[in-house]
Amino acid sequence: MYEIVLIRHGESEYNRQNLFTGWSDPDLTEKGVEEAKKAGKLLKDAGYTFDLAFASVLKRSIKTLNYVLDEMDLLWIPVQKSWKLNERHYGALQGLSKSETALKYGEEQLHIWRRSLSVRPPMLEPDDPRYARNDIRYKEVRPGDIPRGESLEDTVHRVGDFWGNRIVPLIRKKERVLISAHGNTLRALIKYMEDIDETALLDLNIPTGVPLVYKLDDDVKPISRFYLGEPEEVQEKAREVANQSKITE
Amino acid sequence: MYEIVLIRHGESEYNRQNLFTGWSDPDLTEKGVEEAKKAGKLLKDAGYTFDLAFASVLKRSIKTLNYVLDEMDLLWIPVQKSWKLNERHYGALQGLSKSETALKYGEEQLHIWRRSLSVRPPMLEPDDPRYARNDIRYKEVRPGDIPRGESLEDTVHRVGDFWGNRIVPLIRKKERVLISAHGNTLRALIKYMEDIDETALLDLNIPTGVPLVYKLDDDVKPISRFYLGEPEEVQEKAREVANQSKITE
Repeated sequence: MYEIVLIRHGESEYNRQNLFTGWSDPDLTEKGVEEAKKAGKLLKDAGYTFDLAFASVLKRSIKTLNYVLDEMDLLWIPVQKSWKLNERHYGALQGLSKSETALKYGEEQLHIWRRSLSVRPPMLEPDDPRYARNDIRYKEVRPGDIPRGESLEDTVHRVGDFWGNRIVPLIRKKERVLISAHGNTLRALIKYMEDIDETALLDLNIPTGVPLVYKLDDDVKPISRFYLGEPEEVQEKAREVANQSKITE
Repeated sequence: MYEIVLIRHGESEYNRQNLFTGWSDPDLTEKGVEEAKKAGKLLKDAGYTFDLAFASVLKRSIKTLNYVLDEMDLLWIPVQKSWKLNERHYGALQGLSKSETALKYGEEQLHIWRRSLSVRPPMLEPDDPRYARNDIRYKEVRPGDIPRGESLEDTVHRVGDFWGNRIVPLIRKKERVLISAHGNTLRALIKYMEDIDETALLDLNIPTGVPLVYKLDDDVKPISRFYLGEPEEVQEKAREVANQSKITE
């Protein structure tokens, strides 16, 4: 039997302002820092430990991980950071607020972008300063692989490669793995473990800063999953996410 | 021409209490955190950037690095952590204060331990809880390689392997490298670059939290070196280190 723990980063500045985030790189808010520290305490108190950890190349994911590891006295473990775990790329919506988006594109279109698996947001223009091809952190990525906007399905595919090639082999070696990532990349990881359908995937609201533990069988398929922490608090956080922050992924 | 930047971690709890530290793993103090952040700002303002970074497996080194990288917006770069960059192992002196040590072993012996290249401190007993063989972070290290106490020379040898095998090849590939480490491991690195003699090595007092920049020729030998920051402030910090904190390495 294997085990893996997932954690969604704590509140970011963009979450707080209700802005589409995607590959934008806002810092954690004070609340986000506290969420991360609390997650670390929960894991430590429950007796967890890890052999290595993953994060995206976005600071809200890396800093969440660092706070967790610090609380657990595990800052010394290897950490692998990959753009493949970045949030869904929200194209030209990145940095816009929900109300700006509704005003510019209409409520109905907004609903489609948020509730469709395959519809892409408006793409970034090649000369847009938000286009990551000009960002040194993606210099090792083939330019054709750097998105200008992704559907949830695009994100799921990108994460799938990483899951299959980089994470599963480690799990099979009984490495205890912690992944700090984003709402949609965690959805994608869960899809690979659970084979859930489109609607269930869209309805999956992962609370921020709450460790999600998966017990896995020999085929790396879930036997059970549960959140660490007080059940009422976890449910309340999931409701908050469902109500407010889908927009700010 | 190559370049490398070294940084000694900011003040730790043991530094503040004037205790021998070695492989003990105290956290940074508030002052230590501020030193680290300031170092990051200095590097950023001077236009530096890095492709990858090294730290020891001790949290004062890792957290110093994380604060520096956060200030520089470089949290996403790869970080390699190795016990080979740990501080000199101070054996049975670890956790003792200067006055306790003087009382127990005499002022003269204390002076010898601090001013000799080859004399080892009293070794830890195999069943001492401070012996790292029982610490999970050293599980990959061959038990025979885990010290129970080191002379400065021992530390220099251990760091030399790492310098030659792991760091120099990266420098030659023109990777821009940042190393966050400890007083004696940085002394060792400097010895490999500069071929300085024993006395000069012992007299080398590296201030905490001040980036030390080396310009290197094609043979990875120094052309020049300088500290970033106000010269008076750097000198003052070096004096402080020379006067007080040798004991707390």
